[in-house]
Amino acid sequence: MKYRIGNPFETDAVLQKGRECDKENIEYFQIEETEGFRLSYRMTPQDIIWGLGENQKGMNKRGGVYVSYCTDDPNHTPDKKSLYGAHNFFVVDGEEKFGVFIDYPSKVTFDIGFTHSEFLDITVEGKDFDLYILKGTSLREIVQQFLSLIGESYCPPKWAFGYQQSRWSYMNAEEVEKIVDSFLYYDIPCDAVYLDIDYMEKFKDFTVDDASFPNFEGFVKKIKDKGFRLVPIIDAGVKIEKGYDVYEEGIEKNYFCVDEKGEAFVAAVWPGRVHFPDFLNPEARRWFGLKYKGLIDWGIEGFWNDMNEPAIFYTNKELHKAVEKAKEAQNQNLDIYSYFELRDAFVGLLNNLKDYQDFYHKSEGKLVNHDKLHNLYGYNMTRAAAEAFEEIQPDKRFLMFSRASYIGAHRYGGIWTGDNHSWWEHLLLNVKMMSSLNMCGFLYSGADTGGFGGDVNPQLMIRWMQFSLFTPLFRNHSAMGTRRQEPFAFDEGTLHILRNIIRLRYALIPYIYSEFMRALLNRDVYMAPLAFHYDDERSRRVEDQLLVGDALMITPIYEENAGGRYVWIPEEMLLWKAVDYKNRSYQIYKKGNAYLEADMQETPIFIRKNHIVLLGKHGSSVEELCHDELEAIAFVDSKATYVYYDDDGTTKEYKNRQYKEVLIEIEKIKNDFQITIINKGNDKLKKISFEILDIQGNMTKKIVEVS
Amino acid sequence: MKYRIGNPFETDAVLQKGRECDKENIEYFQIEETEGFRLSYRMTPQDIIWGLGENQKGMNKRGGVYVSYCTDDPNHTPDKKSLYGAHNFFVVDGEEKFGVFIDYPSKVTFDIGFTHSEFLDITVEGKDFDLYILKGTSLREIVQQFLSLIGESYCPPKWAFGYQQSRWSYMNAEEVEKIVDSFLYYDIPCDAVYLDIDYMEKFKDFTVDDASFPNFEGFVKKIKDKGFRLVPIIDAGVKIEKGYDVYEEGIEKNYFCVDEKGEAFVAAVWPGRVHFPDFLNPEARRWFGLKYKGLIDWGIEGFWNDMNEPAIFYTNKELHKAVEKAKEAQNQNLDIYSYFELRDAFVGLLNNLKDYQDFYHKSEGKLVNHDKLHNLYGYNMTRAAAEAFEEIQPDKRFLMFSRASYIGAHRYGGIWTGDNHSWWEHLLLNVKMMSSLNMCGFLYSGADTGGFGGDVNPQLMIRWMQFSLFTPLFRNHSAMGTRRQEPFAFDEGTLHILRNIIRLRYALIPYIYSEFMRALLNRDVYMAPLAFHYDDERSRRVEDQLLVGDALMITPIYEENAGGRYVWIPEEMLLWKAVDYKNRSYQIYKKGNAYLEADMQETPIFIRKNHIVLLGKHGSSVEELCHDELEAIAFVDSKATYVYYDDDGTTKEYKNRQYKEVLIEIEKIKNDFQITIINKGNDKLKKISFEILDIQGNMTKKIVEVS
Repeated sequence: MKYRIGNPFETDAVLQKGRECDKENIEYFQIEETEGFRLSYRMTPQDIIWGLGENQKGMNKRGGVYVSYCTDDPNHTPDKKSLYGAHNFFVVDGEEKFGVFIDYPSKVTFDIGFTHSEFLDITVEGKDFDLYILKGTSLREIVQQFLSLIGESYCPPKWAFGYQQSRWSYMNAEEVEKIVDSFLYYDIPCDAVYLDIDYMEKFKDFTVDDASFPNFEGFVKKIKDKGFRLVPIIDAGVKIEKGYDVYEEGIEKNYFCVDEKGEAFVAAVWPGRVHFPDFLNPEARRWFGLKYKGLIDWGIEGFWNDMNEPAIFYTNKELHKAVEKAKEAQNQNLDIYSYFELRDAFVGLLNNLKDYQDFYHKSEGKLVNHDKLHNLYGYNMTRAAAEAFEEIQPDKRFLMFSRASYIGAHRYGGIWTGDNHSWWEHLLLNVKMMSSLNMCGFLYSGADTGGFGGDVNPQLMIRWMQFSLFTPLFRNHSAMGTRRQEPFAFDEGTLHILRNIIRLRYALIPYIYSEFMRALLNRDVYMAPLAFHYDDERSRRVEDQLLVGDALMITPIYEENAGGRYVWIPEEMLLWKAVDYKNRSYQIYKKGNAYLEADMQETPIFIRKNHIVLLGKHGSSVEELCHDELEAIAFVDSKATYVYYDDDGTTKEYKNRQYKEVLIEIEKIKNDFQITIINKGNDKLKKISFEILDIQGNMTKKIVEVS
Repeated sequence: MKYRIGNPFETDAVLQKGRECDKENIEYFQIEETEGFRLSYRMTPQDIIWGLGENQKGMNKRGGVYVSYCTDDPNHTPDKKSLYGAHNFFVVDGEEKFGVFIDYPSKVTFDIGFTHSEFLDITVEGKDFDLYILKGTSLREIVQQFLSLIGESYCPPKWAFGYQQSRWSYMNAEEVEKIVDSFLYYDIPCDAVYLDIDYMEKFKDFTVDDASFPNFEGFVKKIKDKGFRLVPIIDAGVKIEKGYDVYEEGIEKNYFCVDEKGEAFVAAVWPGRVHFPDFLNPEARRWFGLKYKGLIDWGIEGFWNDMNEPAIFYTNKELHKAVEKAKEAQNQNLDIYSYFELRDAFVGLLNNLKDYQDFYHKSEGKLVNHDKLHNLYGYNMTRAAAEAFEEIQPDKRFLMFSRASYIGAHRYGGIWTGDNHSWWEHLLLNVKMMSSLNMCGFLYSGADTGGFGGDVNPQLMIRWMQFSLFTPLFRNHSAMGTRRQEPFAFDEGTLHILRNIIRLRYALIPYIYSEFMRALLNRDVYMAPLAFHYDDERSRRVEDQLLVGDALMITPIYEENAGGRYVWIPEEMLLWKAVDYKNRSYQIYKKGNAYLEADMQETPIFIRKNHIVLLGKHGSSVEELCHDELEAIAFVDSKATYVYYDDDGTTKEYKNRQYKEVLIEIEKIKNDFQITIINKGNDKLKKISFEILDIQGNMTKKIVEVS
């Protein structure tokens, strides 16, 4: 049900336009017209509020205030109300069950039992928005409805499911090659190495610094020949520099955002002063998108879009004010108030919200203030790239993910969760956030494993890797000035453990990729809270375990020095404490609470009852995996079925149902298991070796040839 | 064993001077002489490192880097290495068990498995220090040795065990009175209301602003008559202002720290420019301490010492540099490096470490650079007050606690844990830190309940109160500009719960006070990790449960929206889920793991086997509690004994063994319990009503008259 309030700007968040209802009949909420609108819902004590995508706090959002306003906050402590994305979808899950999406591209505030324990209050700071209310009988059904409404998620190439290594920055070709060679030397699988801002010439988009990366095209090829792809960053701001083509063309064609006088708006980011491309103007979007072609022509197959909230370090106006304050201060005995005012003038330059009111987009001939459309900016930068990729190489899947986003952006790229820290708290936040992101369509996602800011220690690196190995985007990234955190940057024992974890990821790719694609094609999620499949009160409240695809439950360890953790087992499950994926042993866990011991080298993986997991062998990269022989681990009480999905991994033929499925069924018949395999077109697969465990923990091994 | 390296400055941390050993024979450590000294110990994987007092991270300090250098960090995220105190005592607890205290008043860095998983590396940035190594057979024994070494902890008056309400700031007499009246109106017990910096005239120590607090002496009396004490703050910095007596006298007598030219050193804090009293000079210490007398004469009986790291907002020198940078920037096109340099020049003014090298103390006629003695500053400010109290009213116990501290300061005052935030993470940090503080002698301690910075929500306030009710210092404090967090500042349901929690605290005072005093008199701790009494591997690793006194184990809930938590029960225990302390029901928990359900209004309290807890009734203040009739809850399998301690609560007569003890013994004899009570001088106590539970959960009630 869609309710239109006022005359909203078209965000393109929603694909199915749905039936419009009379806004006088909005259900569930008390509506109050203020300067904008205020929607109020009285929660029962049992209500859980799921969703809101990229945000702080728990899977259950009760207790917090969340402000949807894309923000580059490099220090996101628990009190921060805005992160990089704006994802206004949530589900009320109690006696009443319904989903809500507020399609409004500027500030929306959700006060979910923060001010008053029982009230969910939404403040929309404008009078023009679409409100969608989705009814259903379960959380999962409501989420699936929403995912259908907003359209199919972005699909990365299969190689992007490999491990990826990043740092701000590998400064030059030698350093990149040294990293690549270290992976080869230590025999650690890896698919991509990232180029952060320093690969560019003076931080100019679509340039490569000749001094540090001479003959870039040749270098890209050289690294590719070693089995690695390079993934460069693209920033939102375009450097103001005479003779720089992007700048010159943007000015000439009026493709930049403008100030109140209609002149290209000036802000400062990495390159110093920049203009911001007006991604909301379709022509500007196409123009900027096609700029990626230069790098693509040099062999690049993936990008990450950054600083596209857009982040602003300072504007001339605010810097001028601060400097004036400093000058005034010079010959005065500053009292403490004037001192803090002076200090704050400088501190407040970074991402000053006032700046967002000082520039404009062109939309259908009119100027629209940026602040009113703020949350669409990063989304449309990603769209610029994706639309251009479609034009440049229509059938190729490029890697693309962004920092800022809005609902709708999930169709054009993934997101990573921004500048986190090497804090245990941020590992836990990562765990909680993944399911919320999935509910908002962002399936291809992950955090900076090990933490971006601050120094990681060996055990945090290990525990974080043990979680990220399950996230579609599995990238290790860290900031300038912090401790190196490549898997070989620690002591020998740590290296050994990290190598095994990354190999485990590669071994699990048949399952991970298959489940990701299943979610994508069926408008479902890849990572879910237990509540998606278990509706008892305990399961619904578990905040630190996740279902990964259909068959697995994971219980990440996120506490320092912990030799294990408590787990809630919602039904009988099979535990595999993975150390080396080739040597496996299992334990049956009964429904209930348990303390699970897990040494530093052990990754606990639970297999659900009557489910099957497939794995292969590791290889040095995803493309090296041949998957002619797979292994299956099954925990079968009566019957388990699995549909193993695969495709070419590079084209969009999956959209035309050009993929291969293998149907596997295991049925318990007396004391034996009958295995049925129906192969729909997977020519590679020759053999599956089964380890089937029954409810008593007895193992049956079988090998089945696949024809 | 004491090892003297070089020629250390006398810190007075240690009372028993101990036998000195040859420093060539230092056990356990590899020692390397660098610019200072580096001590290295190879840990086994099982070693737990306890201690380090006021610090981040877990009870087990492995995985972190900790820098002992008293720091005012108002934003203590998990990566911060220094907090307000410097407590260089830790215990290695593995196959080898020993305690280490490094008596050195400047920077000491502990890298405990951070850089390399197995190494504990200590860097002392100087060549003159005392190293103490304490051997023992258990953690508890080693801690007790250390507490004997450093001398008896500070003892507050009994009223300081009541609930205390603070805020930066209750701005004037009307506001203070309104707070007091609200407690009376809502019938919530409270013993003290705090006066933060705004009670002073222009932040000048020992002044009271006449406009906002006219007739202060009368006002103190008026509030006292209502049953509340006022507790004013005292800051380290003395405002530079002609005619202000403290300033004038300090200058005249050369009692301030000096710069390299020998002139009083200037820094800026709340009052703007200030001088720092040289608390290391005994004469200056006495002079400053006796200044408290003015407020004491007006009826004040407690103080908190703040900003005594000392915190520095800016110095003229660094401010001048920053302003010069701003001026240079004015007509330039700032590139991103020069921009961040400019910004950092202003950001970095606050607590700039360089400033600490720019001033000096006088010691035995010589100037000693502050940086070399930095960690003694706050300690000696507290000592100044305590020594003066001793002189002013030798037998009276004053409330005194400080922000900055060093080992030794525990004899002069308590500490609170500084400017935390309204984060669930800081509630958990509070839980973990309490036992470490106890091990370092800081028994009278607690955090800003509800969090100082940021906005608290109702459930965090409730859960934090449920923990703080067990900490000796139980104070609710919050910063200017944040949400009000007095117990009556939330919705009706929350008010009701908070009132019950505070009343529970008052009901438990017979136990809390008795156990606190027992710890103090026996060189033991009041709050301890489970490892103090249970040495199985699981118990040793529990980081989120505490033993409180001898009879209780608490399991605070520190997660948002949690309806319970997992607990480890190290032996059979009796659970009391306290809602209203008068209506009690119990459950037996067997040894093992359990998920404990606890609604928002429930405070779980575990009573150990063969132990007894005493409680009385609540009252509006501690002095109102008469304790003629007590109730005892006992969980008895064979025999339980308890020594109930009490004293006058106001004098130091406890030092002369002038206290009253009641020995209670309950012995199970067949199906009955035999109670023996030996009263050593408690005239008030007339009756104890027993609720005795046996191992099957059967309750026996008995009432015993006490003579």
